[in-house]
Amino acid sequence: MSASGTAALPNPFALWRGGSLPDAVIAYESWGRLNADRSNAILLFTGLSPSAHAASNSENPDPGWWEKMIGPGRAIDTDHWFVVCVNSLGSCFGSTGPASINPETGKAWRLEFPEIAVEDIARAGWEAARSLGIEQLDTVMGPSLGGMVVCAFTACLPGKARRFVSISGSSAASPFAIALRSVQREAVMTDPDWRNGQYASTLQGPRAGMRIARKLGTITYRSADEWRSRFARSGLTEQGIRAVQNAKGRVPESFSPRFAVEGYLEAQAERFVRIFDPNCYLYLSRAMDCFDIADHGDPAEVFARAGYESALVIGVESDFLFAIDEQAAIAEGLQRGGIKTEFARLPCVEGHDAFLVDLPRFDAAIRGFLSR
Amino acid sequence: MSASGTAALPNPFALWRGGSLPDAVIAYESWGRLNADRSNAILLFTGLSPSAHAASNSENPDPGWWEKMIGPGRAIDTDHWFVVCVNSLGSCFGSTGPASINPETGKAWRLEFPEIAVEDIARAGWEAARSLGIEQLDTVMGPSLGGMVVCAFTACLPGKARRFVSISGSSAASPFAIALRSVQREAVMTDPDWRNGQYASTLQGPRAGMRIARKLGTITYRSADEWRSRFARSGLTEQGIRAVQNAKGRVPESFSPRFAVEGYLEAQAERFVRIFDPNCYLYLSRAMDCFDIADHGDPAEVFARAGYESALVIGVESDFLFAIDEQAAIAEGLQRGGIKTEFARLPCVEGHDAFLVDLPRFDAAIRGFLSR
Repeated sequence: MSASGTAALPNPFALWRGGSLPDAVIAYESWGRLNADRSNAILLFTGLSPSAHAASNSENPDPGWWEKMIGPGRAIDTDHWFVVCVNSLGSCFGSTGPASINPETGKAWRLEFPEIAVEDIARAGWEAARSLGIEQLDTVMGPSLGGMVVCAFTACLPGKARRFVSISGSSAASPFAIALRSVQREAVMTDPDWRNGQYASTLQGPRAGMRIARKLGTITYRSADEWRSRFARSGLTEQGIRAVQNAKGRVPESFSPRFAVEGYLEAQAERFVRIFDPNCYLYLSRAMDCFDIADHGDPAEVFARAGYESALVIGVESDFLFAIDEQAAIAEGLQRGGIKTEFARLPCVEGHDAFLVDLPRFDAAIRGFLSR
Repeated sequence: MSASGTAALPNPFALWRGGSLPDAVIAYESWGRLNADRSNAILLFTGLSPSAHAASNSENPDPGWWEKMIGPGRAIDTDHWFVVCVNSLGSCFGSTGPASINPETGKAWRLEFPEIAVEDIARAGWEAARSLGIEQLDTVMGPSLGGMVVCAFTACLPGKARRFVSISGSSAASPFAIALRSVQREAVMTDPDWRNGQYASTLQGPRAGMRIARKLGTITYRSADEWRSRFARSGLTEQGIRAVQNAKGRVPESFSPRFAVEGYLEAQAERFVRIFDPNCYLYLSRAMDCFDIADHGDPAEVFARAGYESALVIGVESDFLFAIDEQAAIAEGLQRGGIKTEFARLPCVEGHDAFLVDLPRFDAAIRGFLSR
């Protein structure tokens, strides 16, 4: 059984750094069925860019962003678990964000949208779960930004989950990641088509800046070693040649893409700029910079207060955006807080995005944890 | 004794990938004195952005980019060595490049400048050395792009140096570095002020794009670990606040810099965009992508043909732009070519830029090698 819907948040929904949102909603999708004692729910938060469509369902048969991980018999087995995935507050796939209409003005929020925090994403996601009859989660789980969100969930909603799973996340944005994101935002905001947030539509928005932001993101989501074996110094593939047709005329021939890796970036960027709202991108990106679990006290005490029965922290050695040391820091905070913690330090070569690619390793780690 | 000057290249100067340059020149600076048998010369190539001003001299007392390494009693001891540093062909500090006047039209070359290769930088630098009476170098040396140039020198000018020193270089651009540079160039070329290369001056050029390119460069020149200890999650410093005054008004308050690391990037970017010509940047950046010693044959044979008496390869473990594996590959090529090779694998935390910062370790490695 699967479903998708929209949950209304408490009205108004007060925000972590001040201000509030009227009539805010969270888009979600779910798979499986909540059992009689409501004890089998898993709440899944996403990375920065995905929607709540983590897996295909009857309403939307397109593959989801974690298609191979969620379903009957899969690592997150929907014959057993009731899985809810939420689109983050501030995003643009059905949840309230800067691209939504402000009901008080009848116009899109754009830069009038209040600052959102990772804490708000956690609290809004929990409200969506609650709207489905869930009183306590079996497991709160999230990769990337979602791995930050589960830390914020821990701080803001102690006792609301029995188990904790962080995947390639962070309990405090690193200066390296802040630096990268600040450059990505600068690329968007200095594109004249951004128009201080007043572009007519995503397609008529700061495409050049969003392309740069996404290409840079793509570089940081993988690893140099993976690319060395995958692309080496090869020329453009057929697919790459098609992808860079878009770039033709935009730059002089001598500087137009000629290496396979450039074609790959091109394809990634074009896909992203067609679907992601630039203002939403800016808000979510900045929210990540500002997250630090220490704002809530000693991380060990924050985790102890949450009282998890057990926790799983998965990190990837080749991840240089959310580095393995950051994963170790989350695990260490949990352990100091007295939580029974497994730290799965995976030797995948795919970097930050390994959770989307190296499915055998992630399947084993998550399946094992959930079955215990 | 020190000097600076301009050497005329053979006219016309034929280029590696076709075409030629009329009346081309190379700017150089030198320190020390060529001895009677002309056997004590060191030719130093630079990274992408520096001028030939590697150290202060009587004509220019400003500190050079490697001030602490070059001088009487220093690692590169100018009481003993005659050191020549060249501004790369294609750059904008006195050597012929896209910002120079094309003598055939009387106008700046801009995008009419022919494609330059790392091989051309090597050959032009050698011509500058030759113009000073040098027939064979004791040592050819270079960091970063300069470390690529010494590989190209090896291929193009066998027998012209007795010893070889590569510092955080590469014998073949990696797909990861190509990807990063392609994003940097895209930032410059999609800035409307680039005007397809026809901006009025560097200061009236694509500053927004150059800022992004340099900030991204700065991120890749250091390491996440260094920044974690240096900046942590601190707010802007006094210096950072001054630096970001420039950004005021350019972006909305909620997205303007607030972390120390953002102020650092801001200062680096502003310094760079005032001095570096955007078209020159594009040409040198693309030249790096296209370099591969294998274009000249099996690297071992290329090194063997050069017949070096000995070689030193210095790499930094935290360098993720020119990764330690790339340094190991250079050393391995030399060793397979029968060259007596030292590989100094340094545990510096400063990443690619360590050669500018961790002077004790670099001093020891270079001093030791040169004195043998």
